[in-house]
Amino acid sequence: MIIVLKPEVKKEQITLFQASLEEKYNVKVNTWIGVESTVLGLIGDTTQVDEDWVNAQEIVESVKRVQEPYKKANRKFHPDNTVIELPTGQKIGDGNLCIMAGPCSVECEEQINYVAQRVKDAGATFLRGGAFKPRTSPYSFQGLKAEGLDLLKGARKVTGLPIVTEIMRASHIDMFESVDIIQVGARNMQNFELLKELGKTDKPILLKRGLANTIEEWLMSAEYIMAGGNNKVILCERGIRTYETATRNTLDLSAVPVIKKLSHLPVIVDPSHATGKAWLVESMAIAAVASGADGLMIEVHNDPKHALSDGAQSLTPDQFDVVAKRAFALKQAYEEIINA
Amino acid sequence: MIIVLKPEVKKEQITLFQASLEEKYNVKVNTWIGVESTVLGLIGDTTQVDEDWVNAQEIVESVKRVQEPYKKANRKFHPDNTVIELPTGQKIGDGNLCIMAGPCSVECEEQINYVAQRVKDAGATFLRGGAFKPRTSPYSFQGLKAEGLDLLKGARKVTGLPIVTEIMRASHIDMFESVDIIQVGARNMQNFELLKELGKTDKPILLKRGLANTIEEWLMSAEYIMAGGNNKVILCERGIRTYETATRNTLDLSAVPVIKKLSHLPVIVDPSHATGKAWLVESMAIAAVASGADGLMIEVHNDPKHALSDGAQSLTPDQFDVVAKRAFALKQAYEEIINA
Amino acid sequence: MIIVLKPEVKKEQITLFQASLEEKYNVKVNTWIGVESTVLGLIGDTTQVDEDWVNAQEIVESVKRVQEPYKKANRKFHPDNTVIELPTGQKIGDGNLCIMAGPCSVECEEQINYVAQRVKDAGATFLRGGAFKPRTSPYSFQGLKAEGLDLLKGARKVTGLPIVTEIMRASHIDMFESVDIIQVGARNMQNFELLKELGKTDKPILLKRGLANTIEEWLMSAEYIMAGGNNKVILCERGIRTYETATRNTLDLSAVPVIKKLSHLPVIVDPSHATGKAWLVESMAIAAVASGADGLMIEVHNDPKHALSDGAQSLTPDQFDVVAKRAFALKQAYEEIINA
Amino acid sequence: MIIVLKPEVKKEQITLFQASLEEKYNVKVNTWIGVESTVLGLIGDTTQVDEDWVNAQEIVESVKRVQEPYKKANRKFHPDNTVIELPTGQKIGDGNLCIMAGPCSVECEEQINYVAQRVKDAGATFLRGGAFKPRTSPYSFQGLKAEGLDLLKGARKVTGLPIVTEIMRASHIDMFESVDIIQVGARNMQNFELLKELGKTDKPILLKRGLANTIEEWLMSAEYIMAGGNNKVILCERGIRTYETATRNTLDLSAVPVIKKLSHLPVIVDPSHATGKAWLVESMAIAAVASGADGLMIEVHNDPKHALSDGAQSLTPDQFDVVAKRAFALKQAYEEIINA
Repeated sequence: MIIVLKPEVKKEQITLFQASLEEKYNVKVNTWIGVESTVLGLIGDTTQVDEDWVNAQEIVESVKRVQEPYKKANRKFHPDNTVIELPTGQKIGDGNLCIMAGPCSVECEEQINYVAQRVKDAGATFLRGGAFKPRTSPYSFQGLKAEGLDLLKGARKVTGLPIVTEIMRASHIDMFESVDIIQVGARNMQNFELLKELGKTDKPILLKRGLANTIEEWLMSAEYIMAGGNNKVILCERGIRTYETATRNTLDLSAVPVIKKLSHLPVIVDPSHATGKAWLVESMAIAAVASGADGLMIEVHNDPKHALSDGAQSLTPDQFDVVAKRAFALKQAYEEIINA
Repeated sequence: MIIVLKPEVKKEQITLFQASLEEKYNVKVNTWIGVESTVLGLIGDTTQVDEDWVNAQEIVESVKRVQEPYKKANRKFHPDNTVIELPTGQKIGDGNLCIMAGPCSVECEEQINYVAQRVKDAGATFLRGGAFKPRTSPYSFQGLKAEGLDLLKGARKVTGLPIVTEIMRASHIDMFESVDIIQVGARNMQNFELLKELGKTDKPILLKRGLANTIEEWLMSAEYIMAGGNNKVILCERGIRTYETATRNTLDLSAVPVIKKLSHLPVIVDPSHATGKAWLVESMAIAAVASGADGLMIEVHNDPKHALSDGAQSLTPDQFDVVAKRAFALKQAYEEIINA
Repeated sequence: MIIVLKPEVKKEQITLFQASLEEKYNVKVNTWIGVESTVLGLIGDTTQVDEDWVNAQEIVESVKRVQEPYKKANRKFHPDNTVIELPTGQKIGDGNLCIMAGPCSVECEEQINYVAQRVKDAGATFLRGGAFKPRTSPYSFQGLKAEGLDLLKGARKVTGLPIVTEIMRASHIDMFESVDIIQVGARNMQNFELLKELGKTDKPILLKRGLANTIEEWLMSAEYIMAGGNNKVILCERGIRTYETATRNTLDLSAVPVIKKLSHLPVIVDPSHATGKAWLVESMAIAAVASGADGLMIEVHNDPKHALSDGAQSLTPDQFDVVAKRAFALKQAYEEIINA
Repeated sequence: MIIVLKPEVKKEQITLFQASLEEKYNVKVNTWIGVESTVLGLIGDTTQVDEDWVNAQEIVESVKRVQEPYKKANRKFHPDNTVIELPTGQKIGDGNLCIMAGPCSVECEEQINYVAQRVKDAGATFLRGGAFKPRTSPYSFQGLKAEGLDLLKGARKVTGLPIVTEIMRASHIDMFESVDIIQVGARNMQNFELLKELGKTDKPILLKRGLANTIEEWLMSAEYIMAGGNNKVILCERGIRTYETATRNTLDLSAVPVIKKLSHLPVIVDPSHATGKAWLVESMAIAAVASGADGLMIEVHNDPKHALSDGAQSLTPDQFDVVAKRAFALKQAYEEIINA
């Protein structure tokens, strides 16, 4: 961490400040006194140094982190890719493309079993489906809740596909005991209380990026889970909020290689929520694979026009067949190209 | 709600769609068939009509809400300003300027009592202070928690100032029983589970605007609380996330008159979090009063440079004296100008 | 265009407004009077109807365009893809991948000829290079100007590659007479005076998307050029400004399929300016091809660390060899996948 | 400027880089070698150091400016407020509130003379009016052009109000010879060729902030004009583009005190374009005055509902009477409060 001091600072103030930094954060401070400004360099583990506190000091002009503020999620301290393996054998981050597919909301047994079978046949490796639904309006359908979880488990029994579903409050963790991957939605990316509790479980956590969160904040939220002892975090890019209205959100595919550089965690992409439009899902799914994503999360509904939520962005099983086939083919083709 | 259908739609499809809308949502549908496109107009209570569902219909080109999706927060159905009155007599939204002031984090008895007394002397009507702190990093100070709540209550006893403090999870509601106003932070604005539980209490709720949330989404979150039966919602603008980096966030003061037009709820402004810089607080506090805000929330710390969080944006008690005095004076002066 | 009137509007007002719309814009107006609101539907060519004017009418609640405001750039009125062919035979938008490569700034004869030859050898079909450079600071290198144009022409002579270079003011059009494709930079996307003048030429125009412009505004800028009689517009996505700071801009790849749906014009992608970092160029170039882009624009410099501008995002010729090879291979592989 | 080098850098590389910096930019370089990283500090005038170039060096990890990149616009080198005085005596930035008012577009003699007289009577000190209009659509009214300029001059003759009007291309500068203040619109804020030419004139330039430009970029554009020798730059905040759709743009009032701190140039606020809605103009005008703005720019039209452009945001002369009266009164009241 580099701290630039104000021009008019006196020598005694610098000495005092240096001492307080060393004591407070257990770091070593080097001072470089220039003609126009004085710069301090902090050596040691600066992840715990509070930028707000430093900035508040009267003699400080500005602060610049050199070291990232996350440790456990940082590739520097964990050079190899994290591969998350489920007890049932499925892997995420091992170089293969994983596809999580299914309806936005679980609606009934017939629906979820039918969709589960169809996405499995198309190559999906996980069944996704919402039981608890975060909705902007209190008057919109909020999910089947516990009943929805049971239906998902039923579909898992029938198809063998592990299930991914969203949790909305810490007190539900027990209820999610037999869920295979617990999803944290975009609106809860900085629900730190929930993250802390999930850090105490040993479940894989799918952490969606918040609508207006930076990549660094996203990794800090992963760090919350990991700081609790749970290293099984899967990141999911699902579009960020911008001024553009032609799409529901703006899919930030550059986040994929950026995450790959900064972190060892697997990262997948959700083109359905990012674009909000079924006709954009294929091209963005393919582009996501090309960008290096470890997987895709795609909404599939037996009958999108009667879906209880997010119908506009759902693919039919037939459309999903095509997308999955092309995504797997592209993954393979691109690997051959790279290894050529 | 106006629904524009695709050009090529057939008459039978329109009839079927019209019938399904009327049955599903208990609305009346008027059809206007033009040469190039057909438009449906929905009459009745359309707050429960699911735009996603409508958009997903194959024959639908686009949807436009005429009626706002919120009801209880809507000024149309509640023309008079809501005035929130505490059991101890303080009012918010009654035309007077209310100022909530205090430290970002409660640190110790001496600190909170000193700051409480100072802000009271300066005219503040509420004491704010964080006991549970949402922090981006798991390694940053997370607040004194329950002990912090006790210290706040102690300061209330000493000064008589009612207290405002942030809640971070629904399971803490019991612990917040004797808090006067419960704050929902920006990161939890769409923590719908928390909002629902707060809707079951009878506490005034201070609902901060999310970093990347529209005014409509903000009012929908108020609606979540009100739909549960709790109408005591105070909105708090605290800056939105933009590309500008000169300030921590961009304070959206136009939100104040917009909220005043759309809703009957009181709205206050937090210039400390919006700007992130103590030297910007005064001008933005004054501008907020001029924009018509019902109140201000301002961070004050006895010793900002030693604050455990957000020191850079805290005022000293002496600085706050000046800001409060000027804010009250401006409020009065502007009222005289308007009534002249 | 659908116009929703305010609830309290009187019949005479509606009749008057209807008449003035019909007279002013030569459209037919249908009126649908509902219980709660009245809706007008405009039939005919509404591209010339001024939304600002409509919105300003006292009786108007809101306006919704059904028809896009652009005509010549609209796929509805021109279903086939536009293919732009240069006198020398090169085509853009014909289904093949076109790659425009070269240095941000032309620096000297040796440099531009060397880079031109290298990118040609790697398969680039156009040489890009800046002679006039838009720089945020008046103290930064502003390009070799006329001399730079001459060097570009020299490199064209040597390699046979047509040249693409940026124009910054209308009065330079004569000087750009022998340039093959004239580029309009992001900052000039809404320099309407420049667009109008370019509309009078018969040069292909590469129109970069503005940093904060919507896709609709971008197409309206294309419409400016086309309205003048020049239909040879190539759109270039180069990232938009968001709050994210990990990349210079946020590359909006969903813009590619959106443009393909709304317009018949070719669209290419510039991953160099979008990301601002050389190590991100390959993955975003590949993702752009996968998203359906007609081409790529990539910065290549013989010696990026000594480049006079934008060195951080330039590839070396060796790096470009790899990216170009993989991009062409992916394009071919994906076509085989689609046609399988 | 602080340059952080990569951890693995060798001593010889550092020495070489240091030498090349000193030679290239005529600065002195101090090196601070830490255990984990090496930091260089540049001393001297770093405004001409090209960050892109520095960032492109292989051994560089990151760069941080300590000194602002603008000099002539910088308050550090020019502590006193700039006061711009017109030959006819009007001043901007002298502590009084200046109000520029008038129609978006000049439409006819009767209109402009009537509005000019009305705004003068209400206390406006300048007449604004558009002769050349930047419009998103090529099919919208583009202004009366030269005829509009003549009408403005006529209104000036009648009322004595100096005129402010927008220029859209450098080749028009001669035509603007007798205009009192030349406006550069938001879309041209980074039309550097236009800025350079305006820098050669001695006219006061009103520089609007671009829709997606940072305050630093805005000051750099002022620097372009000043670098040419013209120091008479007035900055105008007019809202920035965000995701919020309740207002046309988001007015960034915190920009006012930020500019006041960073620069000595006067800054005014345009609430009409920022909000896009006439009913929001008063509250934002008053808030702007309270934030410390030197002036206001407000659209006034004799008959907003028949305005040829931007009618929705124009005030009637009667409405303007009220806004101007209150703005002047608030300015005076706030000064009394501050001096109390």
